[in-house]
Amino acid sequence: MTPERSAIDWIAVDWGTTRLRAWAMRGGQPQAARASDRGMGALSPETFEPALLDLVADWLPAAGRMPVIACGMVGARGGWVEADYRPTPCPPLDPRRAAVPPTSDPRLDVRILPGLSQADPPDVMRGEETQIAGFLAGEPGFRGTLCLPGTHSKWVRIADGQVLGFRTFLTGELFALLARQSVLRLTIAAAEPDPDAYLQAGRQALADPHAASSGLFALRAASLLQGLAPPQAAGRLSGLLIGAELAAARAFWQAAPVALIGAPRLTRLYETLLLAAGARACHKDGGTAVLAGLAAARQAMLEET
Amino acid sequence: MTPERSAIDWIAVDWGTTRLRAWAMRGGQPQAARASDRGMGALSPETFEPALLDLVADWLPAAGRMPVIACGMVGARGGWVEADYRPTPCPPLDPRRAAVPPTSDPRLDVRILPGLSQADPPDVMRGEETQIAGFLAGEPGFRGTLCLPGTHSKWVRIADGQVLGFRTFLTGELFALLARQSVLRLTIAAAEPDPDAYLQAGRQALADPHAASSGLFALRAASLLQGLAPPQAAGRLSGLLIGAELAAARAFWQAAPVALIGAPRLTRLYETLLLAAGARACHKDGGTAVLAGLAAARQAMLEET
Repeated sequence: MTPERSAIDWIAVDWGTTRLRAWAMRGGQPQAARASDRGMGALSPETFEPALLDLVADWLPAAGRMPVIACGMVGARGGWVEADYRPTPCPPLDPRRAAVPPTSDPRLDVRILPGLSQADPPDVMRGEETQIAGFLAGEPGFRGTLCLPGTHSKWVRIADGQVLGFRTFLTGELFALLARQSVLRLTIAAAEPDPDAYLQAGRQALADPHAASSGLFALRAASLLQGLAPPQAAGRLSGLLIGAELAAARAFWQAAPVALIGAPRLTRLYETLLLAAGARACHKDGGTAVLAGLAAARQAMLEET
Repeated sequence: MTPERSAIDWIAVDWGTTRLRAWAMRGGQPQAARASDRGMGALSPETFEPALLDLVADWLPAAGRMPVIACGMVGARGGWVEADYRPTPCPPLDPRRAAVPPTSDPRLDVRILPGLSQADPPDVMRGEETQIAGFLAGEPGFRGTLCLPGTHSKWVRIADGQVLGFRTFLTGELFALLARQSVLRLTIAAAEPDPDAYLQAGRQALADPHAASSGLFALRAASLLQGLAPPQAAGRLSGLLIGAELAAARAFWQAAPVALIGAPRLTRLYETLLLAAGARACHKDGGTAVLAGLAAARQAMLEET
């Protein structure tokens, strides 16, 4: 879909490791959305501009400049241009610290939002800070924990509109490596996790901190000896890993309300297990949050000038 | 090196997922040793015999049959022929249960030793049972725990010449996946683990069961923010994973002596951390153990006939 060019006054971009997503925006309202698989991981510094133009060239004006506000791994070392990490505690966004990548097309006015860092324990994020800002735009008084599940899940303490601190877990990446590349690939293949097997293994990992470590090979053995079905094995693997993450992140959710932000299927897994463990948890859509955060950055830039 | 054919009365074979190793034997004494990278993982059922012949054809007699005794993944489903799993508790070897694969060369008389299984928690081994038998041939009265570190490490309870039970951990495979394929590959690359960083992280994982889960991404962040060097990151990753394994396997080593069997570099890592945790631990070479176990199987076969 191509909206009238005159209806577009800026472009919002969520540019992660594997995906590039763009929205044609009028104020805070998306007029059109597009995506490609030209994520930061597949690009070298000189191929970011062509990848962006391939997606949004017909949204650009014949003359004049179009503001483009981007977040995510596009601003990592090895991305288009390196954007800062802002040290926490701090508010999730500061568009004045945005990085400006080199561009050839005179119509492009691109800003890449900075990420966040934490000194002790060392941690970083890029992209999630914009989702956090989007969430806080809707709930400015929120005090508690945000959890953003994904390849690398983030647990984030929030109060007074600030990110107080956070912690990253490799759980999603670990699941993909184990299910698709370890000896467990023979047992799991492409199966979808069974919800009951997930919940049972998740409770087990929450109760016994060693369950994940000692329970992985047992999935392969149970498939060889007892015919454990692939969806059950996938569910148990998912439960063991997410349960271990929840156990390690207990300080984040035990005495604070948790809002989960991310893809519905994944946030549902986290939410089910958190509720079973007695936490107060609810969920928000991650795509909505990142767009709201990019719109908040656009608004802050307008107010500045 | 080719010994006199008349000096060879059987051939010992250790055939794992990635390696094929063969020894020309006279009684219990190896006369020559050879190896290739044609492990079970790279072969289909009809290519096992050619892979074996490529390695040992000149050890075979002009006429008559040559006993070949093999252990390891060659006997797995998808291997040359599927050998049994013998349920524990039981002695580590029972050559009467060896499987006989189909062969075309009339000089080959191949036997593949069975593996071991455990019903609860489900677990299996193939190849390690032969190392255990080799160890017990030298120390028949051993009572305690054997630990066989590797891609899949095994903790094994031994008494009265029997395997009472065991537990497998994916630690070696997990290290390889994380260090070479996850986001940590950018931090670790091909670095060798630093011993001090290893020991420090290992102690930490022994003391805090959540350290491994929450400490992985911190390695990447510390490299981005604080310039953590690759050998330190590799050492910390190794310490977190082996420490988590030791914590989960505590019941195996807390009140029993541990003999470590495996490659010297890896057994040394386990031994260092076990000794630091107050365990009684010593080590044996894994290559010697498997050959002694195959020789014990040969002796048992001779005594039977």
